[in-house]
Amino acid sequence: MALTGVLRPGYVQVRVLDMEASLVHYRDRIGLDLVEMGADGRAYLKAPDEFDHHSIILREADEPGMDFMGFKVSSDEVLTALGRSLSDSGLSVEEVAAGEQPGLGRRLSFFAPTGHRFELFSSMELSSKGPMIENPDLWHDEPRGMKAQRFDHCLVYGIDIDATARIFVDLLGFQVAEKAVTPDGDTIAIFLSCGMKAHDLALVRFGEDAKLHHVSFRLESWHDIGHAADLMTRYDMSVDIGPTRHGITRGQTIYFFDPSGNRNEVFSGGYDFYPDNPVRQWTADQAGKAIFYYERALNDRFMTVVT
Amino acid sequence: MALTGVLRPGYVQVRVLDMEASLVHYRDRIGLDLVEMGADGRAYLKAPDEFDHHSIILREADEPGMDFMGFKVSSDEVLTALGRSLSDSGLSVEEVAAGEQPGLGRRLSFFAPTGHRFELFSSMELSSKGPMIENPDLWHDEPRGMKAQRFDHCLVYGIDIDATARIFVDLLGFQVAEKAVTPDGDTIAIFLSCGMKAHDLALVRFGEDAKLHHVSFRLESWHDIGHAADLMTRYDMSVDIGPTRHGITRGQTIYFFDPSGNRNEVFSGGYDFYPDNPVRQWTADQAGKAIFYYERALNDRFMTVVT
Amino acid sequence: MALTGVLRPGYVQVRVLDMEASLVHYRDRIGLDLVEMGADGRAYLKAPDEFDHHSIILREADEPGMDFMGFKVSSDEVLTALGRSLSDSGLSVEEVAAGEQPGLGRRLSFFAPTGHRFELFSSMELSSKGPMIENPDLWHDEPRGMKAQRFDHCLVYGIDIDATARIFVDLLGFQVAEKAVTPDGDTIAIFLSCGMKAHDLALVRFGEDAKLHHVSFRLESWHDIGHAADLMTRYDMSVDIGPTRHGITRGQTIYFFDPSGNRNEVFSGGYDFYPDNPVRQWTADQAGKAIFYYERALNDRFMTVVT
Amino acid sequence: MALTGVLRPGYVQVRVLDMEASLVHYRDRIGLDLVEMGADGRAYLKAPDEFDHHSIILREADEPGMDFMGFKVSSDEVLTALGRSLSDSGLSVEEVAAGEQPGLGRRLSFFAPTGHRFELFSSMELSSKGPMIENPDLWHDEPRGMKAQRFDHCLVYGIDIDATARIFVDLLGFQVAEKAVTPDGDTIAIFLSCGMKAHDLALVRFGEDAKLHHVSFRLESWHDIGHAADLMTRYDMSVDIGPTRHGITRGQTIYFFDPSGNRNEVFSGGYDFYPDNPVRQWTADQAGKAIFYYERALNDRFMTVVT
Repeated sequence: MALTGVLRPGYVQVRVLDMEASLVHYRDRIGLDLVEMGADGRAYLKAPDEFDHHSIILREADEPGMDFMGFKVSSDEVLTALGRSLSDSGLSVEEVAAGEQPGLGRRLSFFAPTGHRFELFSSMELSSKGPMIENPDLWHDEPRGMKAQRFDHCLVYGIDIDATARIFVDLLGFQVAEKAVTPDGDTIAIFLSCGMKAHDLALVRFGEDAKLHHVSFRLESWHDIGHAADLMTRYDMSVDIGPTRHGITRGQTIYFFDPSGNRNEVFSGGYDFYPDNPVRQWTADQAGKAIFYYERALNDRFMTVVT
Repeated sequence: MALTGVLRPGYVQVRVLDMEASLVHYRDRIGLDLVEMGADGRAYLKAPDEFDHHSIILREADEPGMDFMGFKVSSDEVLTALGRSLSDSGLSVEEVAAGEQPGLGRRLSFFAPTGHRFELFSSMELSSKGPMIENPDLWHDEPRGMKAQRFDHCLVYGIDIDATARIFVDLLGFQVAEKAVTPDGDTIAIFLSCGMKAHDLALVRFGEDAKLHHVSFRLESWHDIGHAADLMTRYDMSVDIGPTRHGITRGQTIYFFDPSGNRNEVFSGGYDFYPDNPVRQWTADQAGKAIFYYERALNDRFMTVVT
Repeated sequence: MALTGVLRPGYVQVRVLDMEASLVHYRDRIGLDLVEMGADGRAYLKAPDEFDHHSIILREADEPGMDFMGFKVSSDEVLTALGRSLSDSGLSVEEVAAGEQPGLGRRLSFFAPTGHRFELFSSMELSSKGPMIENPDLWHDEPRGMKAQRFDHCLVYGIDIDATARIFVDLLGFQVAEKAVTPDGDTIAIFLSCGMKAHDLALVRFGEDAKLHHVSFRLESWHDIGHAADLMTRYDMSVDIGPTRHGITRGQTIYFFDPSGNRNEVFSGGYDFYPDNPVRQWTADQAGKAIFYYERALNDRFMTVVT
Repeated sequence: MALTGVLRPGYVQVRVLDMEASLVHYRDRIGLDLVEMGADGRAYLKAPDEFDHHSIILREADEPGMDFMGFKVSSDEVLTALGRSLSDSGLSVEEVAAGEQPGLGRRLSFFAPTGHRFELFSSMELSSKGPMIENPDLWHDEPRGMKAQRFDHCLVYGIDIDATARIFVDLLGFQVAEKAVTPDGDTIAIFLSCGMKAHDLALVRFGEDAKLHHVSFRLESWHDIGHAADLMTRYDMSVDIGPTRHGITRGQTIYFFDPSGNRNEVFSGGYDFYPDNPVRQWTADQAGKAIFYYERALNDRFMTVVT
């Protein structure tokens, strides 16, 4: 009991156009540790507060976007049970054997109705760059760049987000933390939690499937959000919006782009979510405030630029 | 799945010597909302970020200390099942009927081997002072005093903390986040989580049972910890130690006392805990750093002053 | 020696359309103390960290804007000498007798070439709401609203800013901290310091004279800037831009509007200025970054909306 | 006018026992830039926000302490005039020729009644590591370690602090910002400002002359004070006290020691001082709160450990 089943977002594989520039971005600017370069050229990175071997995988490709996002579950038995549950619902579930990524055990993979590939896994080696365990100091090395602590969540865009949300809620045990709805009751955005964070996965309705809106990294505080903004200008990085705050989740945020055009977020704050919390609801006329609490208006990029 | 079973600390009933002074302390200084005064003179308070009717109960008495601490569970079925599990283990479980506290449903109560009374409940009315739900702003009213967001956890002292910990781990599904051990392998302190916080309940070995070390409140950031320290001096409040940081949990902290001598804590930061994290272990020779990371030494009060 | 002559911005008189709404804005939101309402209906306010009787004067009028801005000088002798210096330069200097504002001694008043009325004074009564002097606590009362600490500076718009700047530099002893220049060498903005702040008065070239761009208030930190932004949305205040940072001065900032349309700023950070510092220079093509370091682009409002 | 005469603390020469360890301390931990190693083995460092060639000079010696502290004055004429003024008062003033330190012009040196050697200078080369001047970014390189921005002030201990204070006030134009006095009216501590900072030099009465209590470095905020504390434990540095706040100056602080036993301080916050501010006075019975606002008690080290 307590936290079981799906525990958290475990990894995301992102397509990048130029590996060298991407490593500067994710390692030196965002502050991830490069764990290793795979034999096939993929880069495996992790944030300093994560125990597992890696959480961010970069794959060089011709166009940006997200290959897949994987969630860690609490045990191999749970993995098997959840896989069966997904299969029973009619989804095609593929097993990827252990070792396809270094340190990672077997995974179950499926395509959600919005065209995104999601995965489940229960076993990953511990990283040698994880937090200390014996008489632990705060960190091995001083945090670097934007000082990302964790890979936090993804926001993805697609057509039938209700159907994708049903899989996560009904089959995988996620809770709805917040949603935005039209006057007709149609969901335009839904924020799903598998633990105590305001969101581990967010879905926004969009005219095209399989799109990535952003990959988000956790920072410690609003102070670090400000420092991240300083870095973005110092290094001429492409910024979407921020520093600002979301009405949804209450998180403090900057949206910016990696060198390939994938949107990233640095995120801090937000409330502690519990499954007995009432669902926070936003009406479409307040969508601006929901997304950008300070500006109280959406920008076009938020609605249209995805990879 | 996800977060089920025991969700979080729900309430704590604290004995105070002078209700008027205590209300100034908890309401005006710590920043809780006074929900109502009960017919029997008890005061019901809550922090602004909590949905439930109340989380802190003050009872006027001749000596300070903790009457009981209650944990919220995910459903009435779970409540029944956990109660049976406790009974089956040989504990005497008493049911307290709904309504003994305003807004609170039936509870199951038991005494742990360390002499502390713990309770479980699944149902509490929503407070009208909880977070907004429809197009929510950050808060109704500007945060006040130390700007406590939530009742976070308790640390209690007693003799056989191993036995009490076993109940929480084996029967109630808690996880061990951190512990401190002697060279002989005896546990001197253990930090237990039922969700994603580094601790929801902490136990320290002590020569006497049924003792309260502190009741902790969540603040947003180190900045707010500093502001809390400013308030403590401005209002001549009794401070134990801080601002400092814990090695255990990594939380930023001040220990201080309410007018009755009960220790309080304001707490921010700390890592996100997951049940697959390795247990962080501290050796006895590093206990100073474990407790007070900056001072790297215990003070006598930490070890001896309890209520 | 050390700091002599003109010490700092002492007061600004702002025209407001609705006194009641303005008091809510400046007192409850920005966090100034209302010192007194004058017999003629003007409101006198001050920030908690100021010793003098008042720093902000609100006058109800039919259109918004700035009536005048006054600088405090170090002594009555200096006041006389500076007045003579201004007169000798051909400016018409008017003496306003003590008592025209409560607590304020005699002032010397002149119109700068950009049409703004500036004043000098050396004597103002101490406020009973100033900082403590004997065994001082941080503050009498907990800071309120945005927690403004001081009236910091004004930015004004006008045609011949070079001529106005010459008065402040050549006659009043100000130093140029930063300026922005066109490729032809024309100054488009100039930031003047009479002490150790990056600016006490700023001038921007504009097609019309006697215009107020903003009145700025000092906050303690970026954290407080964020809190101010939270308040602005909570209370539906009109925001221009921010939270962001200026390239010029390095200050962290939000521009927003009072209920009459006068722009205000809350400002924190910025470097310590010394008169031997090289003048920091900005080229016109970098004006966006100079003004809004994070956005790296000007918004139209910055250039056109003044009172 | 405005800021003239003595501008600020310009440099301090500190004796260290082990140059290598000291460089790790001042460069890697505190975050200064090493400008150059002199031919005679002295190390010249500066903080990133300073324009001048250097501000901290380390000299390897057999015992720790301060060789001298130098103040920058506004011009060579002022330097000559101040030197004459010191001589006329009966002090022996020695001129040190330009070039004794790299980048530094001629200096005037004298011993104050408390046995400390102070210097005045007006000319120092600009450092190539100073702040940017043309379209300046916030910094060249990301701030490092504790992210010191400036050398801020020194606190020195000696017998006749009144006599030393008179030199700074009567001859060098400093202002008294705060002082602590015994019931008999004897000054036990005095805080002197030559600009807008709460102190540029502080003197505490002590039974021995020529002692250094601490060299202080400016940090940006309370957040950075917390980060500095994290570093001190991470690198097993010797800490005196903190994070805490001073009642005097209101600064947020940590006292710690360099590897040679010289006390350092990291300092943030504090009010803007102006020469027309009333002198803040502390009585001896409130000395604890004056020095350590949170603890409200002095520790022995503060009173006795000096170099």
